[in-house]
Amino acid sequence: MRIFIPALALGLSIVSLSAGAEASKPATPNDIVAAAPAKDWVRIAPSDLMVMDLAPDASGKARRVVIQLMPAPFSQGWVGNIRKLVAAHWFDGIAVVRAQDNYVVQWGDPDGETPGKAKALPAGLRTVGEAEYVAPAGALKARNNRGNDAYAARTGFEAGWPIAGNKQAAWPVHCYGMVGVGRNLSPDTGTGAELYTVIGQAPRQLDRNIALVGRVIAGMENLSTLPRGTGDLGFYKTPQERTPIVAVRLGSEVAGLPAYEYLSTESGSFAAYVDKRANRKDAFYIQPAGGVDVCNVPVPIREVSR
Amino acid sequence: MRIFIPALALGLSIVSLSAGAEASKPATPNDIVAAAPAKDWVRIAPSDLMVMDLAPDASGKARRVVIQLMPAPFSQGWVGNIRKLVAAHWFDGIAVVRAQDNYVVQWGDPDGETPGKAKALPAGLRTVGEAEYVAPAGALKARNNRGNDAYAARTGFEAGWPIAGNKQAAWPVHCYGMVGVGRNLSPDTGTGAELYTVIGQAPRQLDRNIALVGRVIAGMENLSTLPRGTGDLGFYKTPQERTPIVAVRLGSEVAGLPAYEYLSTESGSFAAYVDKRANRKDAFYIQPAGGVDVCNVPVPIREVSR
Repeated sequence: MRIFIPALALGLSIVSLSAGAEASKPATPNDIVAAAPAKDWVRIAPSDLMVMDLAPDASGKARRVVIQLMPAPFSQGWVGNIRKLVAAHWFDGIAVVRAQDNYVVQWGDPDGETPGKAKALPAGLRTVGEAEYVAPAGALKARNNRGNDAYAARTGFEAGWPIAGNKQAAWPVHCYGMVGVGRNLSPDTGTGAELYTVIGQAPRQLDRNIALVGRVIAGMENLSTLPRGTGDLGFYKTPQERTPIVAVRLGSEVAGLPAYEYLSTESGSFAAYVDKRANRKDAFYIQPAGGVDVCNVPVPIREVSR
Repeated sequence: MRIFIPALALGLSIVSLSAGAEASKPATPNDIVAAAPAKDWVRIAPSDLMVMDLAPDASGKARRVVIQLMPAPFSQGWVGNIRKLVAAHWFDGIAVVRAQDNYVVQWGDPDGETPGKAKALPAGLRTVGEAEYVAPAGALKARNNRGNDAYAARTGFEAGWPIAGNKQAAWPVHCYGMVGVGRNLSPDTGTGAELYTVIGQAPRQLDRNIALVGRVIAGMENLSTLPRGTGDLGFYKTPQERTPIVAVRLGSEVAGLPAYEYLSTESGSFAAYVDKRANRKDAFYIQPAGGVDVCNVPVPIREVSR
């Protein structure tokens, strides 16, 4: 057998439906996901997907990134703006402008801060207040995570999303692949026209300081492998280094898009999956941790034929 | 001002010595590092560095990765093996064989498990026992981290390294950029001839299950941006997709290598840096977290002219 270390349990990668053979005693998190019954999977509405096509790579290979927009009650002011920007085809022709290792890849209008050159924004965008970085505490009902957290009194999963909270509020968290809204200094909160995704260790210090509006559910490698920028903060120094964005459309407008489902975070399968993520013990693992970080429990997402 | 989100505090990236102007009231973690006095920086011995030169990229650009080997009392059985492998030039001509998004990049002998084709290992490698995944509890003396941990009773930093522990033992942790030893199923512990580095959220479930032997301190982007493999576990499906490793040498054998220093984790500067990482509050941050994960406190490393 090949020397290896074991795979990340699914995460944002796509799992095959054909892997669904039921295991009598699931040994790994992947086994649990593979054995989850159909009723434990939730279809993501195509209208909640944002499909971003980057320019093809040097070899001509297409580069598509699929982002799921965040549901209520979180960040809906910014999500509403993003829907307007997509409807106006505003993102078409902008570019990936920044890639900082172990931090973020960011895209937006390269001339966004240059008077006279900035691309005009569509009418009707909302100016969202800082208070909307969080939702009421009741938005985190779940008790479905295992382990202490360095940043919040509690963590869990609601409707497929990683959430943190305390007695006063609940908020989405900056895990790998989450998508947020670039902004200027406080009290600016950003419009949604400049976005980033996390490509390293969860920068949880950004929680409650920046709006999270979604997560990458397919094509993450098309962002995470981009060359790192050599300017300050990982910005590209020259326009030639940027990756053009050809088009961004809602999933409901894209012909032939696969359907996507997430493992219901309210299901028994998910509870068993979290427990196994926290307590690895099989032919490879000898020492279960007994806990797991909320950002080390990637919510399983799968692609299914329509 | 350009719309942005703030930079990761230094981490494994290289900071300029010229940024050392003393700030009267440091506002950010970067300010604290820039203001740290010379006595708070510790030179890394070149003989503790492993310099790995990958084949140049498609445009002919050199790709060098510098790895610091882990000091006693951690993992020295494997580190000793790795020193023997480097001395024998054993790594020369092997390849990066795996890149799995949000998990690891791994290198080794592509034919390592094929009888008759595997590259012969040098004589004198030790077979290390599983007990050596951990050190005695006293190896973690520090109380210099802030925040709860999902995986261990306590976390801290010793001699520049992130460490976790409980009443029985202490062990290094799988943070971004850490380097570990690929292995087969337990009770195999690996020789050190197959190595990996973390390119995503800290896979802390591997702590105490795999030996950690070092960390990447320069050139991390040469590994983290490699195309992801499309085979099982992110292995490359064809030899053409692999990245050849031209040579691996100790830093003491490499002419013209810069010197590297880390910010002493026993210094007051480091304590202030951790505190600021846990409590971001400046013109950008409005809501300090009050805590920080051990893997979200990258130990500052800088390059200095000899």
